[in-house]
Amino acid sequence: MSEKEISQAVISRLPRYYRYLGQLRDQGVERISSRELSELMKVTASQIRQDLNNFGGFGHQGYGYNVESLYSEIGNILGLTTEHKVIIIGAGNLGRAIAGYANFERRGFIMKGIFDIQEHLWGTSVRGIPIMPLSDLETFIKENEIDIAAVCIPATASVPVVARIVECGVKAIWNFSHVDLEVPADVAVENVHLSDSLMRLSYSMKR
Amino acid sequence: MSEKEISQAVISRLPRYYRYLGQLRDQGVERISSRELSELMKVTASQIRQDLNNFGGFGHQGYGYNVESLYSEIGNILGLTTEHKVIIIGAGNLGRAIAGYANFERRGFIMKGIFDIQEHLWGTSVRGIPIMPLSDLETFIKENEIDIAAVCIPATASVPVVARIVECGVKAIWNFSHVDLEVPADVAVENVHLSDSLMRLSYSMKR
Repeated sequence: MSEKEISQAVISRLPRYYRYLGQLRDQGVERISSRELSELMKVTASQIRQDLNNFGGFGHQGYGYNVESLYSEIGNILGLTTEHKVIIIGAGNLGRAIAGYANFERRGFIMKGIFDIQEHLWGTSVRGIPIMPLSDLETFIKENEIDIAAVCIPATASVPVVARIVECGVKAIWNFSHVDLEVPADVAVENVHLSDSLMRLSYSMKR
Repeated sequence: MSEKEISQAVISRLPRYYRYLGQLRDQGVERISSRELSELMKVTASQIRQDLNNFGGFGHQGYGYNVESLYSEIGNILGLTTEHKVIIIGAGNLGRAIAGYANFERRGFIMKGIFDIQEHLWGTSVRGIPIMPLSDLETFIKENEIDIAAVCIPATASVPVVARIVECGVKAIWNFSHVDLEVPADVAVENVHLSDSLMRLSYSMKR
């Protein structure tokens, strides 16, 4: 099946497969059956077979899945074989938390710089990543070929900054601001709306 | 239609409706048609009608939706009319970011305390919320009737701490640790796996 035909639901589950397969690979596991993966991931074996059959040729009757090739195939589909250059907007607690995850770099997401309006932070750094004035944004994006911006500032401030980022050609916004951004169709947006997430938890508690 | 029959997909969209309706309410808007809401939220009017018809009696031909009553009905369904008492595990950047959102309190999520293993943080606070030693966890949960724990510590540390929290009767875990937690069936878990989110963004960029 061609990649185009993979449903959004399957795609949204791929990062979780990738995470488990990466752990198995790190433990030296070479192959795994859908039943074993099912027990580990607490999803049905039939769901696993359906999901992974989208990529064809990895499951073999009586053998199971080759961990290494399935891991690298999913990494391919997720675009993790390409290096991404990331900037973070906002050096508050959330921006610093994002900057602090060394694990993102293992997946090819290289944090290049942090931008903030607070003058006393300029010239300081988080895990070696420099904090710079927001006025340097355009020059930095162009000189460093930035392709992802993580937006960690309040909703009211984020709209004009995102417009500037998109104007410079950045093609992906990782949005933590509590607002739905309007961007051109060729710009990818992934929202992390924490308050929506907390409301979903509140709903689940009632069940 | 009874609440039980509302699909998971609709439920997952409710926080976003709630957010937009809250903004409209704050702006003094009394009623809105599905077409207007559609333009605002960038989803089809037919999707809006289908979603909101689950709650019955709010949309009226030629009138539209009553913003106030739809807002409060969705708040009801999401469990936002009940006050929730929250603790945060981990006073790192992420824990501090969560503690810093005064907006959560407006929705009834009251942040009562932060727990950390680092001794030099004990007795300090974030936005008035005290940081305490992890050894005080059990006593604090019981005395303050905590019902939600936001887990903002590394994956390896989170498993034993979550076991302690659940043992004390906390019924909801807001999990930022990069691990899928195993909890009893009556404990709600909402995961915020940031690295999964970043991988989904990477996938979207390829399209």
